[in-house]
Amino acid sequence: MYEGPVQDLIDELARLPGIGPKSAQRLAFFLLSAEKTDVLRLADALVQVKEKVGFCSRCHNVAAGELCRICQNPRRDPKVICVVEEPRDVIAVERTQEFTGLYHVLGGALSPLDGITPERLHLAELLDRVRAAAVTEVILCVNPTVDGEATAAYLARELAPLEGVSVSRIASGLPVGGDLEYADEITLGRALAGRHAV
Amino acid sequence: MYEGPVQDLIDELARLPGIGPKSAQRLAFFLLSAEKTDVLRLADALVQVKEKVGFCSRCHNVAAGELCRICQNPRRDPKVICVVEEPRDVIAVERTQEFTGLYHVLGGALSPLDGITPERLHLAELLDRVRAAAVTEVILCVNPTVDGEATAAYLARELAPLEGVSVSRIASGLPVGGDLEYADEITLGRALAGRHAV
Repeated sequence: MYEGPVQDLIDELARLPGIGPKSAQRLAFFLLSAEKTDVLRLADALVQVKEKVGFCSRCHNVAAGELCRICQNPRRDPKVICVVEEPRDVIAVERTQEFTGLYHVLGGALSPLDGITPERLHLAELLDRVRAAAVTEVILCVNPTVDGEATAAYLARELAPLEGVSVSRIASGLPVGGDLEYADEITLGRALAGRHAV
Repeated sequence: MYEGPVQDLIDELARLPGIGPKSAQRLAFFLLSAEKTDVLRLADALVQVKEKVGFCSRCHNVAAGELCRICQNPRRDPKVICVVEEPRDVIAVERTQEFTGLYHVLGGALSPLDGITPERLHLAELLDRVRAAAVTEVILCVNPTVDGEATAAYLARELAPLEGVSVSRIASGLPVGGDLEYADEITLGRALAGRHAV
């Protein structure tokens, strides 16, 4: 066992996902010999993120205030909503610079076996938003995984009765720059099924 | 880019060794949805380790005060000194429960190509300790690597003229090229027990 504060730091670091006891020990010794100001800046960043950052009351993205930066932007088109699982997916879509609407972050995907039922996600809030605002298009941008597909199917069924709202799902297929030879058969099957005229 | 405090946390986490931008992002989102008290405890552990932990003035191990816990222990035999490279190596040797003397942490191994010359390590302090106290045995417990062996050879030469001090090197029960930190306690215990004069 290490001196109290060192062991405490190792224990706290080892609680983080993907960091085992050995990595925690290695990080703790790195921090022990690092510049004090650097370590205090990390400590402050941790405090700040819990003090200042919450979730957007409209789209559930991370937000430093009541609304996130995207919901606050008057140039974003409020008639189009892109539905994603996690806040990091918002960043991934933003990076394409192809989307100018708003987002809705579900907070995960349906997974009954893991106890993720519709009540655990921000699904009802999405339906309320679509009903309340003049939304014309909902893009289901959840992951092409079993759970994501189940979530998309659930949302498509719930959104179907709403008039004047078109619901779409992002295309599945080969990644750009990918190689047919290394594609798995399900992805390639989807790519074939989703073929379009040129 | 994320909201200011989130991006700040990602940037700070990404400075840690072995944590790339993607891991930093993943950790930041984990911390964002973690309990506030847990995150503040981690922040506090970081502050505490920099506020309270320094290095032992005698053996250069990590210490919460002037002397480390091992140097403070009156039941440890001050006539035997185990020389290791890093504080984590002290823990590795302690785990064998085969050693009851004191330690001397060099702070690394000689590596002229990386600029680690004898002046950069606590080598002179070791020689002073051995000269000043009634030390009868010095165990060179540095890693069985090229740099470690060079350090052991250097120390063996420096210690040779001192009267009444036997100098030994741990047995090569450890795989050559290995690292003390990852040795299991039985192997390391055997290596200690089978030490031989140099």
